[in-house]
Amino acid sequence: MKEVLREPGCELCELAVPVVWQGEKFSVILVDDAAYPGFCRVIWREHVREMSDLAQADRLLLNDAVHRVEQAVREVMRPLKVNVASLGNVVPHLHWHVIARYADDAHFPAPVWAQAVRQTDAAALAARRALLPALSAAIAHCFQE
Amino acid sequence: MKEVLREPGCELCELAVPVVWQGEKFSVILVDDAAYPGFCRVIWREHVREMSDLAQADRLLLNDAVHRVEQAVREVMRPLKVNVASLGNVVPHLHWHVIARYADDAHFPAPVWAQAVRQTDAAALAARRALLPALSAAIAHCFQE
Repeated sequence: MKEVLREPGCELCELAVPVVWQGEKFSVILVDDAAYPGFCRVIWREHVREMSDLAQADRLLLNDAVHRVEQAVREVMRPLKVNVASLGNVVPHLHWHVIARYADDAHFPAPVWAQAVRQTDAAALAARRALLPALSAAIAHCFQE
Repeated sequence: MKEVLREPGCELCELAVPVVWQGEKFSVILVDDAAYPGFCRVIWREHVREMSDLAQADRLLLNDAVHRVEQAVREVMRPLKVNVASLGNVVPHLHWHVIARYADDAHFPAPVWAQAVRQTDAAALAARRALLPALSAAIAHCFQE
């Protein structure tokens, strides 16, 4: 059996948060960010640094996973825009951010990593947060096919 | 003949910067950012908003293009990390950022869209800038195969 690459102390090797989908090669979580309901993360299981370190079949699998999560986010959260990014400067363990963006969100139109420019209305955030069970279900469903 | 989707006034529909690769469906440019030599952009030709708006073959083609550019960036620029992102909040015309990141760059380890935390040494930037002709050549080459 092939050994799984792991890095002691890496928070993504030892994922301690609830997952909405746990596959053999990757997991999907909803990021706990009060300002960004609909912020998902697709986390590769092995401690790999870059997309281009993956074997081709794994790279295609992960691209496809990100695509499915993007579709689920659009379907359920109806965002104005989806932002997709693989950065990993702080935690160099391959993962993708899939973020539902809205005109009234804390940073729009800037990336979520810029300085916040506003506070989103609490009722708007609550309405989006109310969609998260449906988002979890849609994500789980999209990987069961 | 299928008409190409275009949006009047979109700066990516009317690309006015030099390209290092011009394909039938996408272009690749080196972003003119003094602080980030090795910052590339892969720009889809048609005015499409999201990855998940593409037909599957086009999506795979664009994923593959981003992958090839990432490989060229790693090979030539030898960055500490590659950052890859499709945001498009300001210009909702599908494009990918592929960014060479270094421990001494203006924002590391934060994303390049955060507040800058330092100025990179001019000699280090000049050394990286000197690699850009090789990067252009590597990108052009990777799409000729």
